Amino acid sequence: MTFGERAKGGLENESAHLSRSWAEGLGDEGRPVVEPSDAIVRIDSSTICGTDLHILKGDVPEVQQGTVLGHEAVGTVVETGAAVTTLTEGDRVLVSCITSCGRCRFCKEGHYGLCTGGGGWIFGHLIDGLQAEYARVPFAETSVYKVPETLTDEQVLFLADILPTAYEVGVLNGKVDAGDTVAIVGAGPIGLATVMTAKLCTPARLVAIDLADSRLERAQEFGADVTINNGREDAVAIVNELTHGLGADVAVEAVGVPETFELCTELVRPGGHVANVGVHGHPATLHLETLWIKDVTITTGLVDTFTTPRLMELIAEGRLDPTPFATHRFALGDTLEAYDTFAAAAETDALKVVLEGEQVYRGDGRLPELAAAPA
Amino acid sequence: MTFGERAKGGLENESAHLSRSWAEGLGDEGRPVVEPSDAIVRIDSSTICGTDLHILKGDVPEVQQGTVLGHEAVGTVVETGAAVTTLTEGDRVLVSCITSCGRCRFCKEGHYGLCTGGGGWIFGHLIDGLQAEYARVPFAETSVYKVPETLTDEQVLFLADILPTAYEVGVLNGKVDAGDTVAIVGAGPIGLATVMTAKLCTPARLVAIDLADSRLERAQEFGADVTINNGREDAVAIVNELTHGLGADVAVEAVGVPETFELCTELVRPGGHVANVGVHGHPATLHLETLWIKDVTITTGLVDTFTTPRLMELIAEGRLDPTPFATHRFALGDTLEAYDTFAAAAETDALKVVLEGEQVYRGDGRLPELAAAPA
Amino acid sequence: MTFGERAKGGLENESAHLSRSWAEGLGDEGRPVVEPSDAIVRIDSSTICGTDLHILKGDVPEVQQGTVLGHEAVGTVVETGAAVTTLTEGDRVLVSCITSCGRCRFCKEGHYGLCTGGGGWIFGHLIDGLQAEYARVPFAETSVYKVPETLTDEQVLFLADILPTAYEVGVLNGKVDAGDTVAIVGAGPIGLATVMTAKLCTPARLVAIDLADSRLERAQEFGADVTINNGREDAVAIVNELTHGLGADVAVEAVGVPETFELCTELVRPGGHVANVGVHGHPATLHLETLWIKDVTITTGLVDTFTTPRLMELIAEGRLDPTPFATHRFALGDTLEAYDTFAAAAETDALKVVLEGEQVYRGDGRLPELAAAPA
Amino acid sequence: MTFGERAKGGLENESAHLSRSWAEGLGDEGRPVVEPSDAIVRIDSSTICGTDLHILKGDVPEVQQGTVLGHEAVGTVVETGAAVTTLTEGDRVLVSCITSCGRCRFCKEGHYGLCTGGGGWIFGHLIDGLQAEYARVPFAETSVYKVPETLTDEQVLFLADILPTAYEVGVLNGKVDAGDTVAIVGAGPIGLATVMTAKLCTPARLVAIDLADSRLERAQEFGADVTINNGREDAVAIVNELTHGLGADVAVEAVGVPETFELCTELVRPGGHVANVGVHGHPATLHLETLWIKDVTITTGLVDTFTTPRLMELIAEGRLDPTPFATHRFALGDTLEAYDTFAAAAETDALKVVLEGEQVYRGDGRLPELAAAPA
Repeated sequence: MTFGERAKGGLENESAHLSRSWAEGLGDEGRPVVEPSDAIVRIDSSTICGTDLHILKGDVPEVQQGTVLGHEAVGTVVETGAAVTTLTEGDRVLVSCITSCGRCRFCKEGHYGLCTGGGGWIFGHLIDGLQAEYARVPFAETSVYKVPETLTDEQVLFLADILPTAYEVGVLNGKVDAGDTVAIVGAGPIGLATVMTAKLCTPARLVAIDLADSRLERAQEFGADVTINNGREDAVAIVNELTHGLGADVAVEAVGVPETFELCTELVRPGGHVANVGVHGHPATLHLETLWIKDVTITTGLVDTFTTPRLMELIAEGRLDPTPFATHRFALGDTLEAYDTFAAAAETDALKVVLEGEQVYRGDGRLPELAAAPA
Repeated sequence: MTFGERAKGGLENESAHLSRSWAEGLGDEGRPVVEPSDAIVRIDSSTICGTDLHILKGDVPEVQQGTVLGHEAVGTVVETGAAVTTLTEGDRVLVSCITSCGRCRFCKEGHYGLCTGGGGWIFGHLIDGLQAEYARVPFAETSVYKVPETLTDEQVLFLADILPTAYEVGVLNGKVDAGDTVAIVGAGPIGLATVMTAKLCTPARLVAIDLADSRLERAQEFGADVTINNGREDAVAIVNELTHGLGADVAVEAVGVPETFELCTELVRPGGHVANVGVHGHPATLHLETLWIKDVTITTGLVDTFTTPRLMELIAEGRLDPTPFATHRFALGDTLEAYDTFAAAAETDALKVVLEGEQVYRGDGRLPELAAAPA
Repeated sequence: MTFGERAKGGLENESAHLSRSWAEGLGDEGRPVVEPSDAIVRIDSSTICGTDLHILKGDVPEVQQGTVLGHEAVGTVVETGAAVTTLTEGDRVLVSCITSCGRCRFCKEGHYGLCTGGGGWIFGHLIDGLQAEYARVPFAETSVYKVPETLTDEQVLFLADILPTAYEVGVLNGKVDAGDTVAIVGAGPIGLATVMTAKLCTPARLVAIDLADSRLERAQEFGADVTINNGREDAVAIVNELTHGLGADVAVEAVGVPETFELCTELVRPGGHVANVGVHGHPATLHLETLWIKDVTITTGLVDTFTTPRLMELIAEGRLDPTPFATHRFALGDTLEAYDTFAAAAETDALKVVLEGEQVYRGDGRLPELAAAPA
Repeated sequence: MTFGERAKGGLENESAHLSRSWAEGLGDEGRPVVEPSDAIVRIDSSTICGTDLHILKGDVPEVQQGTVLGHEAVGTVVETGAAVTTLTEGDRVLVSCITSCGRCRFCKEGHYGLCTGGGGWIFGHLIDGLQAEYARVPFAETSVYKVPETLTDEQVLFLADILPTAYEVGVLNGKVDAGDTVAIVGAGPIGLATVMTAKLCTPARLVAIDLADSRLERAQEFGADVTINNGREDAVAIVNELTHGLGADVAVEAVGVPETFELCTELVRPGGHVANVGVHGHPATLHLETLWIKDVTITTGLVDTFTTPRLMELIAEGRLDPTPFATHRFALGDTLEAYDTFAAAAETDALKVVLEGEQVYRGDGRLPELAAAPA
């Protein structure tokens, strides 16, 4: 059974998450602002995350049956709550995977991902998500980002999750600095986003490590200087050779299994950083008998999205171009097919699939009357 | 066989480390400067470290038979190499556990503990140590600290290892800040030194956790606000209760076994720090399945001693008093007895034992003619 | 004409700021929530700031005639706007000098003092202030701090401005570190608050510099180790002597005139920090011809109040006691007298005067029925 | 009288600094190692700094008559002192403008520019400099950097001063971050080096400000995104327009006169940084009456050169190319002509002139037998 079928099956039974768009559930007129700080956003473009696949497999038990999935979108504000003063109808906005209540201790520190006031990762998780025609966005003023007119949906869509995740949790937590050797273990979408955003810090060399040659080729296209297939090559030996025997200044875990995390702790030099980006389901072994004396720093974390404005500025100024992540496009009505394509990335070479609503802005300076879904 | 006997046995066979003082091995006149950057230091006071016990047990295989032990001392310069210009005969100095070549990349970054130029932890490890009448100190100008006249040996002796270790690897790596809740797991000498130096940052509360009530009482004397016997109390529950359910801002591992490290990762709040100070012989389990989303930072490390001048200044100004660590004193000739006392800390309540040479400075403003070892 | 008379004069003409309490202006029933994010707070205790004197002198021209003054208070929530969910009637709160919109770039970075969304310093400045019976607090959820039951008004009142100002703009901007020599120029209330909060970082020595012996005596009571009357002593020479000729690690300007700022740039050592806390009306001379090579860092700033929760925790745990700042107390009805007392600090030795409403909580565990203003 | 003539005049009278090469003064065999930590380096390439012109004008009075000038060179070790173990004859090295004793407090902190142990800026200042055939290099092991075989002299020569100065004192002190707007006032060599090294941090836009269009064109070639001629344009207005009215995140002073420094304090946004790189001879006015509330950080400093290894790595990896700075080349014997060319930069468009010894390595993989000086 494909992911699409599993999802379609869901249409007819209680295990579905893709069965219901928000609008469908509530009727045309049914887009109530629930709280004074809410906004209702018409979703113009959204995308599918690896986490959505985990949810469909049942790995994220707190997601209730029938929840609309999706936590990455670009859309247009169509209604705002009574307390909202800085957003108005017609504003084009990025809706981020993380919402921020703006009031709790963690939000006040910029740690929105740890929000204890009702925010954090809630879309397609604790409330209905963004793979829909419309979405209710709580804490709208502290959770969405206005998109400049000059930028297309696809230029900013991946700011909703993958780019700030790679940049904050991988690059910034890892303290990547000019001249560094950075080893990135895993060359899937999040690993590639780490390659892309690590370059903002001008490391001396980026080393991508993966088991699949096709992904390593992609890593090279995204800017990796050295690629290592650790199915047949000794990654630690190669990285040591590149670094006068010291090891990588920064090792980024971008897979989410114990082996790759443990590899990172072997790749890192004394005094270096291991930044964990992967989502893990199992414990790893931490070799403290060798690491205790090695002065290493290991970080974990969910994205906070505090760098989203900065990354958007870099896209607007032409310093960063995330559009190569958009490998496939589907109309919102073809969401099941989109899931199958994304889930079969090994065959389809999909990085990110874009789900397009009818009003997608494609950068021609005005909202198109009617946009057909591209092939 | 006691540690003392094990060491004494060493006097008669090849397994000894305590059998030979540096002077004994080389004769009275035999204190040659080997390198231009060396100094020869007459040892006035030294002490025994838990690591020395590990060496006697055979846990540190790179220590060669017959090596004089000890890496913590206060002494007097008696000779200097041709390249030494900032030290002269008669200078009273702290000889630190870490020597620094001053030229390698790590020394230039202040990471002397990672020195790749021949320094790092070498005393009583790779070269003869400091539990002796005299010691050769390589890279002397970058490895010793002049002691102000106003301070006694015992006021500064514990700056040779335990205090900067606790402060740098526990407190500073853990980023203890004013108002924090700090949980310190382990209330032996290094845990107590963490309690003492954490107070320099004015945390809101210091929580000491140990299995022995006697050690917890000591922790309270040293300044812990809350003590938890985790043999019969639930440390995580108590710390959560103290912190509105969040957990400790900083958890310091000061034991060196997997269980205490894993406890630290449970005690720490989202966004907090785990600082490992303990010396580990076995791997621990890292519960990435819960930690990946928790924004934690885990650090390991050997001391660099870059804070030694700052800590000495604080002692000189009366802000810090390490003398309570000196619980027992022995003449250098009674080193075997000193080892037995230190190794049996559970019975003797020893924290640190002081080995005194003949010329110990006791703070009366001049060097004593002849000082008997105190009882 | 005294400040009190000037203010009283204001009662009868259009230049008054003290003439009107918020409640008076609006009637008993007149405490409307203007915005959904507002709260109305009954003021239980407030205080007068040096800035209020500047306003009465006409130095702050943007303050409109008739504006109620005051930006420091403790009170009780009596009404909340529709969007407010984390505050309820009866909550005892600190109302801080800085309000935060919570949504602008600066608020999201924790720089509430730079708020561009309608917050920042507005009380008694751009809107009616807190020396009143009631106050409207905009952006209430991001601008007030709940006060633990165990703390009295006077324990937390000075967290509204003077303590976080000294700590953030003086101590943290100045990067005071353990073992430092800190020179604080000016021993008025803000200088004393810098002495008090600098101690949280355990400097080796705190040097207070002022022209008035009486203020220097007070500085010593607050914890200064060395005091210098720079009317008759050479502050630079004395600080150099204390620091082996180097100068102070940190020099804090706590007066607000060119001479004291320039003194700070002479007191600071190479590589050190000058933190400006004083409010200046005139330019200073920056001696770049000597400073360009000296590796100094100079900072300016308005308080952000991001450390308020941390400081409140330290007060609750007994690590910090700001109550000695409360030297005089008045009933709200005696505000004019309070102003005269505060303005004549040289004669009255006033540090901070407390204006007490009828419902002052004095730490007996319940709200008193009717509290008389103390003598 | 040209600078060359002034210098030539010096050959015949006591005011000369260019009159004597080190070798000339001491004879062929006369290259004694003075201290055990010295090295003697044959100078293969050197260059002239704006500071050298200041010395010839008499602006740096501590330079004694007859001192050989120059503090930037690439050369080859020909002799080493008794204490030198990590350098050997034949090593190709960069000799930096800053020497480091390696032992004083500042050197141990990485602040070599502040060295109090006999280092800091001494070449061509307190001891004979590097515009010579041979030079004595004190503290050689902590003051020179080995040059990889693959790099030519001109690739690394500007690491001796201009690049780390721009990077450390401008970019790093200014805390340039990804996405920032950086205003650089002054587009001479040091301003251009700031443009070049700021790009390592990927700012959103680099704004170069100068009075000369020719220099602004050059700035554009080096990577400036926006150029402003502040002789006829309003720099503050333009930068504010580029930044939604806020101002530059970072303003770098790269001229050294009061007006440009004061301009920087106007260009910077609230919360931003002013980094002074210019060498100043006069005080500036600091407008504290507007800056006190603006949360600005102002830094000054001499280079420490701690980033030299990092920058060399980036050159070796092709991330940084300083060769465009080398606009003119002269044989060492034509030093006077080189000075005239450099001093007349407005006519000659000189950025940096290279003085070449006979043994210049030009990147063909081996030392040439005999290299003629290029035209």
